[in-house]
Amino acid sequence: MADKRMYINQLMPGQTVDQVFLIRDKDLRTTKSGGLYIVCTLCDKTGTLPARMWQASESIFNSIPVDGFLHIKGRTEDYKGSLQFIIDAMRPYSADKADLAEFIPVTECDVEEMWAELLEILRAIKNKHLRLLIKKFVEDQEFVDAFKRSPAAMSIHNPFVGGLLEHTLAMARAAKALLGLYPKLNADLVLAGVFLHDIGKAAELTSGVTIKYTDRGQLVGHITISAIWVSEKAAEIARETSEPFPQRTVDLLQHIILSHHGQHEFGSPKLPAIPEAFLIHYLDNLDAKMYMTANAVENDPDAAASFTTYLRQLETRIYKLSGELE
Amino acid sequence: MADKRMYINQLMPGQTVDQVFLIRDKDLRTTKSGGLYIVCTLCDKTGTLPARMWQASESIFNSIPVDGFLHIKGRTEDYKGSLQFIIDAMRPYSADKADLAEFIPVTECDVEEMWAELLEILRAIKNKHLRLLIKKFVEDQEFVDAFKRSPAAMSIHNPFVGGLLEHTLAMARAAKALLGLYPKLNADLVLAGVFLHDIGKAAELTSGVTIKYTDRGQLVGHITISAIWVSEKAAEIARETSEPFPQRTVDLLQHIILSHHGQHEFGSPKLPAIPEAFLIHYLDNLDAKMYMTANAVENDPDAAASFTTYLRQLETRIYKLSGELE
Amino acid sequence: MADKRMYINQLMPGQTVDQVFLIRDKDLRTTKSGGLYIVCTLCDKTGTLPARMWQASESIFNSIPVDGFLHIKGRTEDYKGSLQFIIDAMRPYSADKADLAEFIPVTECDVEEMWAELLEILRAIKNKHLRLLIKKFVEDQEFVDAFKRSPAAMSIHNPFVGGLLEHTLAMARAAKALLGLYPKLNADLVLAGVFLHDIGKAAELTSGVTIKYTDRGQLVGHITISAIWVSEKAAEIARETSEPFPQRTVDLLQHIILSHHGQHEFGSPKLPAIPEAFLIHYLDNLDAKMYMTANAVENDPDAAASFTTYLRQLETRIYKLSGELE
Amino acid sequence: MADKRMYINQLMPGQTVDQVFLIRDKDLRTTKSGGLYIVCTLCDKTGTLPARMWQASESIFNSIPVDGFLHIKGRTEDYKGSLQFIIDAMRPYSADKADLAEFIPVTECDVEEMWAELLEILRAIKNKHLRLLIKKFVEDQEFVDAFKRSPAAMSIHNPFVGGLLEHTLAMARAAKALLGLYPKLNADLVLAGVFLHDIGKAAELTSGVTIKYTDRGQLVGHITISAIWVSEKAAEIARETSEPFPQRTVDLLQHIILSHHGQHEFGSPKLPAIPEAFLIHYLDNLDAKMYMTANAVENDPDAAASFTTYLRQLETRIYKLSGELE
Amino acid sequence: MADKRMYINQLMPGQTVDQVFLIRDKDLRTTKSGGLYIVCTLCDKTGTLPARMWQASESIFNSIPVDGFLHIKGRTEDYKGSLQFIIDAMRPYSADKADLAEFIPVTECDVEEMWAELLEILRAIKNKHLRLLIKKFVEDQEFVDAFKRSPAAMSIHNPFVGGLLEHTLAMARAAKALLGLYPKLNADLVLAGVFLHDIGKAAELTSGVTIKYTDRGQLVGHITISAIWVSEKAAEIARETSEPFPQRTVDLLQHIILSHHGQHEFGSPKLPAIPEAFLIHYLDNLDAKMYMTANAVENDPDAAASFTTYLRQLETRIYKLSGELE
Amino acid sequence: MADKRMYINQLMPGQTVDQVFLIRDKDLRTTKSGGLYIVCTLCDKTGTLPARMWQASESIFNSIPVDGFLHIKGRTEDYKGSLQFIIDAMRPYSADKADLAEFIPVTECDVEEMWAELLEILRAIKNKHLRLLIKKFVEDQEFVDAFKRSPAAMSIHNPFVGGLLEHTLAMARAAKALLGLYPKLNADLVLAGVFLHDIGKAAELTSGVTIKYTDRGQLVGHITISAIWVSEKAAEIARETSEPFPQRTVDLLQHIILSHHGQHEFGSPKLPAIPEAFLIHYLDNLDAKMYMTANAVENDPDAAASFTTYLRQLETRIYKLSGELE
Repeated sequence: MADKRMYINQLMPGQTVDQVFLIRDKDLRTTKSGGLYIVCTLCDKTGTLPARMWQASESIFNSIPVDGFLHIKGRTEDYKGSLQFIIDAMRPYSADKADLAEFIPVTECDVEEMWAELLEILRAIKNKHLRLLIKKFVEDQEFVDAFKRSPAAMSIHNPFVGGLLEHTLAMARAAKALLGLYPKLNADLVLAGVFLHDIGKAAELTSGVTIKYTDRGQLVGHITISAIWVSEKAAEIARETSEPFPQRTVDLLQHIILSHHGQHEFGSPKLPAIPEAFLIHYLDNLDAKMYMTANAVENDPDAAASFTTYLRQLETRIYKLSGELE
Repeated sequence: MADKRMYINQLMPGQTVDQVFLIRDKDLRTTKSGGLYIVCTLCDKTGTLPARMWQASESIFNSIPVDGFLHIKGRTEDYKGSLQFIIDAMRPYSADKADLAEFIPVTECDVEEMWAELLEILRAIKNKHLRLLIKKFVEDQEFVDAFKRSPAAMSIHNPFVGGLLEHTLAMARAAKALLGLYPKLNADLVLAGVFLHDIGKAAELTSGVTIKYTDRGQLVGHITISAIWVSEKAAEIARETSEPFPQRTVDLLQHIILSHHGQHEFGSPKLPAIPEAFLIHYLDNLDAKMYMTANAVENDPDAAASFTTYLRQLETRIYKLSGELE
Repeated sequence: MADKRMYINQLMPGQTVDQVFLIRDKDLRTTKSGGLYIVCTLCDKTGTLPARMWQASESIFNSIPVDGFLHIKGRTEDYKGSLQFIIDAMRPYSADKADLAEFIPVTECDVEEMWAELLEILRAIKNKHLRLLIKKFVEDQEFVDAFKRSPAAMSIHNPFVGGLLEHTLAMARAAKALLGLYPKLNADLVLAGVFLHDIGKAAELTSGVTIKYTDRGQLVGHITISAIWVSEKAAEIARETSEPFPQRTVDLLQHIILSHHGQHEFGSPKLPAIPEAFLIHYLDNLDAKMYMTANAVENDPDAAASFTTYLRQLETRIYKLSGELE
Repeated sequence: MADKRMYINQLMPGQTVDQVFLIRDKDLRTTKSGGLYIVCTLCDKTGTLPARMWQASESIFNSIPVDGFLHIKGRTEDYKGSLQFIIDAMRPYSADKADLAEFIPVTECDVEEMWAELLEILRAIKNKHLRLLIKKFVEDQEFVDAFKRSPAAMSIHNPFVGGLLEHTLAMARAAKALLGLYPKLNADLVLAGVFLHDIGKAAELTSGVTIKYTDRGQLVGHITISAIWVSEKAAEIARETSEPFPQRTVDLLQHIILSHHGQHEFGSPKLPAIPEAFLIHYLDNLDAKMYMTANAVENDPDAAASFTTYLRQLETRIYKLSGELE
Repeated sequence: MADKRMYINQLMPGQTVDQVFLIRDKDLRTTKSGGLYIVCTLCDKTGTLPARMWQASESIFNSIPVDGFLHIKGRTEDYKGSLQFIIDAMRPYSADKADLAEFIPVTECDVEEMWAELLEILRAIKNKHLRLLIKKFVEDQEFVDAFKRSPAAMSIHNPFVGGLLEHTLAMARAAKALLGLYPKLNADLVLAGVFLHDIGKAAELTSGVTIKYTDRGQLVGHITISAIWVSEKAAEIARETSEPFPQRTVDLLQHIILSHHGQHEFGSPKLPAIPEAFLIHYLDNLDAKMYMTANAVENDPDAAASFTTYLRQLETRIYKLSGELE
Repeated sequence: MADKRMYINQLMPGQTVDQVFLIRDKDLRTTKSGGLYIVCTLCDKTGTLPARMWQASESIFNSIPVDGFLHIKGRTEDYKGSLQFIIDAMRPYSADKADLAEFIPVTECDVEEMWAELLEILRAIKNKHLRLLIKKFVEDQEFVDAFKRSPAAMSIHNPFVGGLLEHTLAMARAAKALLGLYPKLNADLVLAGVFLHDIGKAAELTSGVTIKYTDRGQLVGHITISAIWVSEKAAEIARETSEPFPQRTVDLLQHIILSHHGQHEFGSPKLPAIPEAFLIHYLDNLDAKMYMTANAVENDPDAAASFTTYLRQLETRIYKLSGELE
């Protein structure tokens, strides 16, 4: 294995490769002449690559770890216009030795810088109780670690480590930019709401080698988890200060969380009923759509087409050339 | 005021009345000749009655308490086929002296008997953690008082003091009757889920002189409040026993609560994903519909018609004669 | 062919098999080197198995009956983690000689016992006209045979011979269990309605070697067919007794049939407008969901996952572990 | 009472009237000074007129028949821009003496001429079984009488005696005009389908002094009733000819009937699955919309406005001036 | 008439008034004793006031102009908790003499300042063709006058003279604030799109004494009108410069206009398919919701309630106290 | 290459072919043994045929033009019950030499005859301005050429050269047939509306070798393009005649165009608000459904089945035997 990794998104047909990959989705198949071959998926943080190993055996197949690592020798080739990998040899590779940063998709921004900027924006909050509440979250190291690692979604937008932070920060910046234009809004509530609106994602999704829903994520969901965490932190403060934490403050934050999907059919048990909830709903949607459209354009398989393939989530195809006016 | 109260649902046109009423919705109006008259609503636990006082004055009007009590003299008359009350004289009446049981609509069943029967049914639960959790709720006197008083809904079904308990008990009886027929169901989870599915109603609705949504009820809603209370009690148990309360148990109870409206558009952030949640969803719906249809038939204004008026909630009129086959 | 059949759901990779199968979906394909092979599906009452025959010819292909039987020699093997069958030889097998009980999916319960129990429950009906009507159906041997054989649905729930009876009996038991709890219901109407609600399925679906929609099933549907049959039997009674059969009784039974899907978009031309129709709608849904969730859990391909695959019909995945609380 | 009736749609403010009216919706009310007055509705075939009788008494009120007749003296006046009737005196009038043709809204076309033209169009049907089936209906005098009297709908379109025939004939004419343009259509099936598509309306709606839903109409509905009648007539033919009536013919006619509302949410349990059903669905809709738009324009209260009031059924207002191009 | 007008929103019960009002919705009614009285609505730019004139006559009634002016003497009084006006005398008042600024609801901002700020923001556009196109609109004095006068909507948001400009400017400010945060957006296209997205409102709505839909507004709608105007101006430029105006630029601007309602059911024939269209859709919605929530809170009739009345447009009530945290 | 072309829809398995095809969708794939083969689609005006070339090379692959022509030698064979083509040799073929009429799907009717018949029907229009407008379109040779070539849709109905004309003519014939039955309709407006309702299709879809959406088609859509063209032609007339073209005429034509899809969710920004728009909406739908059902029946892969496969567009399968009654 050479000094420098060759990342999947940089590979070209006809290259020889000898390095570690993360493995997903293995299959043992028989050829028409009765031989066995293996189909699996190689991953690193830049993407995935379908691979085949001819002349395989059941024991080789059994030695392949799913969601684990293999040191692989082989070569790339073009198949149906897409890249495919032919495995010549493989050997186990311990997860302990692997540099996770090479394999897990991760935000391209600096996590600590983003976190610092988010805290800086939240510092504008003046309301004493909201400040206490945010402090409580920020000082909960376990929460902060999970929040920094969490993706923003399973696949739709910002689906990578740090995605939740990246998305939350983008919304905080936008909120800051708009608050001056709508002075009737309660700026403290908006900023606290932006910070807290999706925190339950940190418990809804795993943020390890692969992004998946947790059981609690599927059964309860990030919206309710976020609301519960607000209640828990408020109760902690009340116990520590021996003073009731203001109920209306909790109610309003939970209302913002519960209503931020904007419609019942998108999983919100409540519809926005305060202007601050409307603002957060639109900023959330806007930031997600900015990611989704940019991502659809960048990753569209047919580079020559002026429209991307149809995107079920957006009920349309995206036109790629809006940036290029004569 | 005579020894025995004449209840509103027993009054006939042409009666003279001299007793205390609860007052709602007062208005001061001017006749076409410039005089003033008062329009208001008299209430007791059996219903409401529109009333008018001719030859009124602004000071009389101001002396009328909304959601408070008046000692009233007057008579009933027929107006447009409905009963109306003509007030001849009124004087203030202290809420302290009023016997609330005469004024607030209340379940016709015995609250303590219902509560005892519900506890008896819950006693069948064998799982240790579920037993602990239910014990925690049952020993929380403030919760129990609120639960016993709470209506089941603002107006749609069981809208009276004790309605939540009545509805919960009806579902518990039905669950008990069906559990033997579907032995694959987790009976403990079903029974605990029935008990807890609507507990947040006790904080969503007021249960005093008039039933109204609380601010927290409108902003957060009983579904989320119920889920939060389960988390809180589980956390209390964990603190007291110094052992983690099983997360899956909390997840499943919260899932049942969150999904029991069955569809996103009815405010459920999650759809049923376990058979126990489906059962509770159908039993909840069934009991509500049994109340709504019976209530529509009993209170339909046109006794001679074979169908009730159109019921927006059910998207239909109800046929009154399904009980009378030749 | 050995004395005892090896059923499809018991086969393991690497077994040699020599017995009769029901055949479905045959295809003749050419390999890349120009040879021919056959792809087909083997069936028995426990499931289906994809099969291939290498070195095939067009005449072999033509000799394979679709929805007919073949005596087959060959062996099982693992392909992509699933079982596949390699056919070495085949010869025709007359449908007359085949023991249909081995090939057609059939209820696991005893049909005659179920039928007897259903009649026993219906015996509680007191209304003279409803008793006459049910007697008319029960004495129509052609109807009874079809009813006993009919599946409850094409694929969604109880899709096997006897499934309609199994589903109807389950609903009758549940109705019996709940009638005591809702004494205002017309119990006679409920029990007759449960019996009749889906009878048209016997004409909507075939119940032979494969379950399919009949032309009449697709053009007219079981809801309308059921309603028509009620009219026909009532007319027969009227002709035989020379007395009009009470119209309201027919109307109410037809209303229950027409409204039992509960919503227009599920094919009900009428919405429930009597409490008895609501009860039957919920019991129907409940029993179907109990089948669907249990079936999804039992047949989920990935045994290790805590959730099943996504079920379009339920708009969710099912959590498999609700029965296992700590 | 003079020789010639003054119809309601010709009355102007300030006229004295002394003639018989049909009465609907009576109410006894008290004035603010305690007096009694009566509010009721006068009807004849041209419309309805709100009426008041001052200085009334309970006994006068009780003597007024609802859906019956009164000989009335009084005068018209303008009230809020609309016409109102002030009753000076009234006396009972026997329904036997009333000329119903003056009171019941009725098609402006000649019923017998329309019926003859419809039969003439149906005569083009060549298929033997369809001819037999239509003959069966046409020779059923009770059916024909009801069909000729039936309105096409309660209020939405052609809501008057003969409306069903008028609507059916309009569709038959349109079908005849289009059949030549779409020669692949089964013309026999189209014509028979047009005739039968709405026949159940004759049992769904009363066609007497007032148009109302019957109980059977509300519980079962005209779509299912129409389908049942087709089954009944086909069975009669089979009994009389001792030959089975072709099942497919029944299936297709019932399919056309069941699907002619075009969408589940409009009460069709089946969607169109043959071109003949699509044609009938569109012709039905087209004829109804032609009635509704013309009727909305003719009866719009504000003659000066270029748009009618909002029509909930059409989700829009209708522009009145499409006929007037420069 | 005194020197200074008393505006409707400042009137209190019991005041004597002698000044000009704009009149709407007049009615002539008869009292129960047979007298005539007039009901009408008085308007000025601050609101509307129901008024009655007792002892009226038909000739007085006929002399009242609808959407015209009257000089009125009378007094205010309290009726059912709301203000009502009693007219003692009235005389015609020529529209020519009326100071329209007193009667027509008008933005509270300075129109010329807003227009200047909007042009300043648009000056940031660098693309030559977009600059030309905007210049074409800005130099079309008839368009500019209409644009400055147009309301933003009939009633939902900014329903007053200058409302369209106010709304457009608010969106332009917000776009400017966010463009820096989403650098991949085509800023020129966003700014031009914001300016043009609703211009057709100037032809859809009247902006005179009362806001109404024009016939063209109802038949064609502002979305299509806006798109047509873009085509027209581009064609003018092409004619003047003898060079084709770039088609893609027209397509993208029209796409933004057509898709800015975001969903088909809100009248958009196209869904957003470029990121710029999503941004404009959200900013449009956000600004409208900020107006609607603030307006609902300010004008809620029950000042004591913590929630406004139910708002059909938002499917909820608005909580008034989100600005007041402890 | 023989004198006479063998069209794709006439080919049988086992034929040798040596002629020119239009090529679409090429792919280069590797066999399991490492060899290369090509997969592509052969087209002519009668259909498409999947083809494979074994023993291929990258240079052969590169020489294949997509949406271009090849002279091909090879043979047909049966694969999975469908026809497949094995290419033995290929050589480039210039598009200039190809007879496009052999390759592009084209209406089976005579374009010039259809156009003449359409003009003849339009000649019945009497309104001067509508005549001028239609003349303007008919004299625009570029428009006429595009209109005659345009398909009526991408795939749903009449997806071939001349399809728009065929569909428009069919509607014009139907309109002509019905106008006599609904004399209140403005016949001139109906006929002009039929002609113009879909003209934008000529710019929405390409009509060359393959039918695709244009960028403008996807971004703006044929509904809006059609409306714009009406405005443009009216403006031209106004410029030429120096008289304003009547605005109401433009409004009504645009209203018909905008509303002809009948519902917002099908892309209509306006709902029909004049009877003429309803008629055109139904005739458009009717003609499309007649094409879709006939086409589904003719092209259903399983000739023996009585129902076609499920058609997503119609939400049903189509019954094939409605034309065959006993």
